[in-house]
Amino acid sequence: MTDIPSTMFAVLQTGDGYSGKATGPAIADAADWLEPGEIAVPQPGPGEALIRLRMASVNPSDLHFIKGEYGQPRVKGAPAGFEGCGDVVAAGAGAEGLVGQRVAFVAASSGAWAEYVLTKAQMCIPLRPDISDEDGSAQIVNPLTAMAMVDIARSEGEAFVVSAATSQLGKLMVSLGRDLGLKPIALVRRAEAVEPLKALGAAEVLVTSDPEMGQKFATISRALKPRVFLDAVSDQTSERIFTAMPNGARWVSYGKLDAELPVLTQMGQLIFMGKRIEGFWLTQWMMTTPPADQGRVVAEVQARFADGRWKTDVSGHLPLRDVVSGLAEALKKTDGKVMITP
Amino acid sequence: MTDIPSTMFAVLQTGDGYSGKATGPAIADAADWLEPGEIAVPQPGPGEALIRLRMASVNPSDLHFIKGEYGQPRVKGAPAGFEGCGDVVAAGAGAEGLVGQRVAFVAASSGAWAEYVLTKAQMCIPLRPDISDEDGSAQIVNPLTAMAMVDIARSEGEAFVVSAATSQLGKLMVSLGRDLGLKPIALVRRAEAVEPLKALGAAEVLVTSDPEMGQKFATISRALKPRVFLDAVSDQTSERIFTAMPNGARWVSYGKLDAELPVLTQMGQLIFMGKRIEGFWLTQWMMTTPPADQGRVVAEVQARFADGRWKTDVSGHLPLRDVVSGLAEALKKTDGKVMITP
Repeated sequence: MTDIPSTMFAVLQTGDGYSGKATGPAIADAADWLEPGEIAVPQPGPGEALIRLRMASVNPSDLHFIKGEYGQPRVKGAPAGFEGCGDVVAAGAGAEGLVGQRVAFVAASSGAWAEYVLTKAQMCIPLRPDISDEDGSAQIVNPLTAMAMVDIARSEGEAFVVSAATSQLGKLMVSLGRDLGLKPIALVRRAEAVEPLKALGAAEVLVTSDPEMGQKFATISRALKPRVFLDAVSDQTSERIFTAMPNGARWVSYGKLDAELPVLTQMGQLIFMGKRIEGFWLTQWMMTTPPADQGRVVAEVQARFADGRWKTDVSGHLPLRDVVSGLAEALKKTDGKVMITP
Repeated sequence: MTDIPSTMFAVLQTGDGYSGKATGPAIADAADWLEPGEIAVPQPGPGEALIRLRMASVNPSDLHFIKGEYGQPRVKGAPAGFEGCGDVVAAGAGAEGLVGQRVAFVAASSGAWAEYVLTKAQMCIPLRPDISDEDGSAQIVNPLTAMAMVDIARSEGEAFVVSAATSQLGKLMVSLGRDLGLKPIALVRRAEAVEPLKALGAAEVLVTSDPEMGQKFATISRALKPRVFLDAVSDQTSERIFTAMPNGARWVSYGKLDAELPVLTQMGQLIFMGKRIEGFWLTQWMMTTPPADQGRVVAEVQARFADGRWKTDVSGHLPLRDVVSGLAEALKKTDGKVMITP
């Protein structure tokens, strides 16, 4: 295709590999981890698509990643950023069907904060025309994770537990659970969050700092029998919740918001009560879930954005060329996502 | 049946419920937990079998149980003992086919250390005539656990890790693994155990007190890629082994020999590497595994005892009436199992 330039502007990572630290997603200055640069536009290989960026969203995982605290190693000099939407302008063998389509995408290792993005075809989801670029650029990481994890919960019963329930993802899971006729039990840090979460669809809301939380959860657990715990925090409170859950419970960790390391106080829970501890990672889900199952989940996500049941809260737009200087400041607004535009 | 008396001698538990402690399987005096008694012979209900005892074996789980440190609560006044063999003399509806058969059994809650034992039909395995009472009375807990767990390991690949590999169960798993063409990686506490375990079939043997153990295991793990860790210890060393295993590894805990509580140092292993932590309990396996799968495993176990590949090491026989006074002394011999006879 003749209109693809040979070089492009991109926001590049300055770190390499893992940092060996776990300080969480906060950043004081993006220049500690990122620098602007002009690099070659990548060429798609077999099964890959080249996307001209329309918009990229900023997720906590992006910040974990640039700091070297995510499950994949950084690549120095490669563009940062996981998620966005754009137009497929070129593709390798087996991915030709995507050319010309507007897609939501996850950049499998790195790359969304650039004028052009290379990723695998499995990581691209064609967008319905009635979905905005704002919704399209935050279409996968949170909504698909919410759908896939609530699917896991639904496979085990009616009630499930969600920690960090006031996060964007937590709220998606609570409202989705309610819509599906399930009973979400929400864990929050602050008492102010209780009523909004009940309004959103939580069957029960517990404040983790409440000294009677353990006793209250035990009562709720006996009554509602939650089998799945969708957990973004993964600390000792998580372990206490897990041990108070009924036989066969699954503790599904998808994040580590608290630096406290959990101690397994009761191995007998795993042995005699058939419980287990596992993780969830959307990238793995996208690479391994059969297309039919993915298709059902993706269609449901798009329907929810198209008809307005779900909406992406946007706190501001930031041009690619201002990311290094302006990202830390833009992230101070906590009422929605920062959107990056070319 | 006219030859069943109305009362019987039994070794009865004096504790009730759980002790709330975790002091391990050692006992100084059986009279701290047990007393002799004459109680009514139980009547089989639907799906139950009444067994006249031939022999009962003493397992570590029996000692955990009488001390109130097992996954089931004690019942004060009920007979102790999980495993044995005997003749089915009466049965309830649905279990009539067992009457007249010599069976190996697990007493589902308690009861093997008595002249007559009541249990569920699913917990009885008819014995081939060429299997001795000694082998028959130690036919289920260790051998079936070994078979079922090595089956789990085999479903995930060639190599697997076994802790406490010098235990009876550990040795069964190592030799079984070798016989099936797998590569058992054995963890032991003492250097003297290394050569005997290699002779038994371990592909690698690591001494857990070796300061270079972590580094050595990492090298072995990269080479052999073990996916399953069959763990009787469940301490911090277990966690270190688990985190050094490759993607998709399963930590299957079936015991807690060390009182140290493991800390989960890397939740990312669960999230990004698809690992999980779970338990194994034979009782659950027997209640839920389809009959055809159980039949295959049971037939293989009996064939191994009948042709001499497996043999129960017996350290001594103890009459039922001497259990309270003599069990602690009899357990001091560590070269085999104590067998209880009526």
